[in-house]
Amino acid sequence: MKVAIQEAFKGIESRAGGPFGCVIVKDGKIVGKGHNEVLKNSDSTCHGEILAIQSACRTLKTHNLLGCELYTTSEPCIMCYGAILWANIFKVYYGCTAKDAEKIGFRDNVFSKYLNKTELSIDSENICREQCLEVFKQYMLLKDKQSY
Amino acid sequence: MKVAIQEAFKGIESRAGGPFGCVIVKDGKIVGKGHNEVLKNSDSTCHGEILAIQSACRTLKTHNLLGCELYTTSEPCIMCYGAILWANIFKVYYGCTAKDAEKIGFRDNVFSKYLNKTELSIDSENICREQCLEVFKQYMLLKDKQSY
Repeated sequence: MKVAIQEAFKGIESRAGGPFGCVIVKDGKIVGKGHNEVLKNSDSTCHGEILAIQSACRTLKTHNLLGCELYTTSEPCIMCYGAILWANIFKVYYGCTAKDAEKIGFRDNVFSKYLNKTELSIDSENICREQCLEVFKQYMLLKDKQSY
Repeated sequence: MKVAIQEAFKGIESRAGGPFGCVIVKDGKIVGKGHNEVLKNSDSTCHGEILAIQSACRTLKTHNLLGCELYTTSEPCIMCYGAILWANIFKVYYGCTAKDAEKIGFRDNVFSKYLNKTELSIDSENICREQCLEVFKQYMLLKDKQSY
């Protein structure tokens, strides 16, 4: 999660998008990383998790990430949970909650009502929330941030 | 939908991935197109809808596709519905259903149980199912197709 937090800070520094970072690990090694780049790329699909999955697919040269685990600084949205399902990732660690993300202006919590999370075949675990909330705090201090 | 079907056939011919095509329209003009490229790119996120949204974002130079409509040859999966939400697309036309996709070996219908579709703020309409089922039929005739 430390590296996922570093990723999120990279995104904040470069004004790439929302303050979200993600890392994918296989057999104890990082195989993919990403931070939100929605604004930098003018592309609504560029969430940290999507970019990290794409990065892991490139590293492992496969669309099948079975056996990988995902660490993300904020709970995946419905799009990203969908991407995690297709990638065959069954373990997710997340820091901030969708409600935390709502407090800094993102729609994850609104969209989470469309998701039957309790039914999901993904084991998701909330860890390091305090450290991840620090990322949000730093983002809120930006004077030139742009919402979307 | 005719162009979305053409996109799907392009993907079948090039063995890019599943038999799915998508088109995004704004003010009567096509602004984005895509077909499934999961196998070609070894990337589980490369669904037709995701690539069409990315293509429309490039065309319109924005992450906000408000006012666009999406045509897809098969009902969007949970990942793609999520991407449609973030892109601010509120109208979706789809051909085949998730159950049709299940019959040709894809997991869309399994994953659809995680989605509260009735709650969605997206108006989705089933059109041209017969023509879109023809795409699936052609795909099933391929001898060298690869499932995922």
